[in-house]
Amino acid sequence: MTYTLFIGNKRYSSWSMRPYVLLKALDIPFDEQLHLFQPGLRQPSFLAFSPTGKVPCLHDGATSTVVWDSLAICEYVAEAHPAAWPTDARTRAFARSAAAEMHAGFPALRSECPMNVGLRIQLGAPWGESLEREVRRLRELFAQGLETFGGPWLAGERFTIADAMYAPIASRCKTYGIELEGAAGEYLERLFEHPAVQAWVQDGIRETAREPLHEEECLQGGRKLLKDLSKDVESS
Amino acid sequence: MTYTLFIGNKRYSSWSMRPYVLLKALDIPFDEQLHLFQPGLRQPSFLAFSPTGKVPCLHDGATSTVVWDSLAICEYVAEAHPAAWPTDARTRAFARSAAAEMHAGFPALRSECPMNVGLRIQLGAPWGESLEREVRRLRELFAQGLETFGGPWLAGERFTIADAMYAPIASRCKTYGIELEGAAGEYLERLFEHPAVQAWVQDGIRETAREPLHEEECLQGGRKLLKDLSKDVESS
Repeated sequence: MTYTLFIGNKRYSSWSMRPYVLLKALDIPFDEQLHLFQPGLRQPSFLAFSPTGKVPCLHDGATSTVVWDSLAICEYVAEAHPAAWPTDARTRAFARSAAAEMHAGFPALRSECPMNVGLRIQLGAPWGESLEREVRRLRELFAQGLETFGGPWLAGERFTIADAMYAPIASRCKTYGIELEGAAGEYLERLFEHPAVQAWVQDGIRETAREPLHEEECLQGGRKLLKDLSKDVESS
Repeated sequence: MTYTLFIGNKRYSSWSMRPYVLLKALDIPFDEQLHLFQPGLRQPSFLAFSPTGKVPCLHDGATSTVVWDSLAICEYVAEAHPAAWPTDARTRAFARSAAAEMHAGFPALRSECPMNVGLRIQLGAPWGESLEREVRRLRELFAQGLETFGGPWLAGERFTIADAMYAPIASRCKTYGIELEGAAGEYLERLFEHPAVQAWVQDGIRETAREPLHEEECLQGGRKLLKDLSKDVESS
């Protein structure tokens, strides 16, 4: 096995989810090393395998290469597996822009809607202005990609890094009941149902480890818990 | 001219600075379109040239391609100009990790030390824990790159995207008097003095447009203004 992907708790770790989904979607074999963690914080014990003390981190055993950032991992994988990006240069430029916009952007979605694949939560109204703006931007971006390149994926016929980068967004929107109108909403649903995304989500629902602080943040501001999918799993 | 790079106010626009510095450093010709702006906010008038309403945005006239994110612009440029990344695959993986870590990370440096190439400010002590941690991480990352690849740049002999992505950090550290020990500190100084970085910085010092809110944020918490380089220019 050439690739070893170090990831965090599948219930929470949105950054780890991206390269995991990419590798699964492209059918690229990899060893998975799951380490439970406190989301966002540097873990001293993680320094044994990741120079930042964070996940995700990819080790390529064939070349002794260490890649420690989710987008950099995707680009690294794309060098050996060009199908990870669209073939056409203009389409690839769009896909890269979308992926990088996600990497540096959407701070309100990140902080106000922490990923939690096991829960369904009522977000409550009205949303803050930043969250509203970011959700509008998501819809606009998805609509542009689908219209320009014909779908069903964000940059055309094939599932690429651009889709993998937005997979955690599909989970967040599902958890907090955020819906997008029109073709953008259908894309978000399609993304959530993709087998590679579901592989992660179903593992995350079965995960039993909990970080109390992260769980609290999901329910910030007195939000109502609608459903705990993990309890359904336990009792079934 | 093939490339047109849309950028913001050179006094403040750290995101615009990255691809600008890359193009300058690699001697790639481009047209510069400077638009004054409120940092971080979507500008309705910018939608005429940028799908996000933000800068930077690159138009490639030769292929009618629009790329709207700083890291995506760098990757796009690298496809036509491979010297933008290190030649060796392992070194490139390091450079990409460093670039992507910058793109998504260092939130305390971003929010507590807004870029302002015209000012020298006393940061005051003690710094917050997050800022301390990020500055330690900078030093560690720079030291790793310099030691592993031999310098003088972050990923070896040539100035690459990894350096361009940290150019705004060199300016922030200069403005707020943040110094790194050892080889990392020497690298930061070398980066600040690079002709491509200085081309931006000197233009920024001469810029006369001001955003009062951004200027206030630079002096948050009663910080002391040590020097206004722009006033020296005006009076000289």
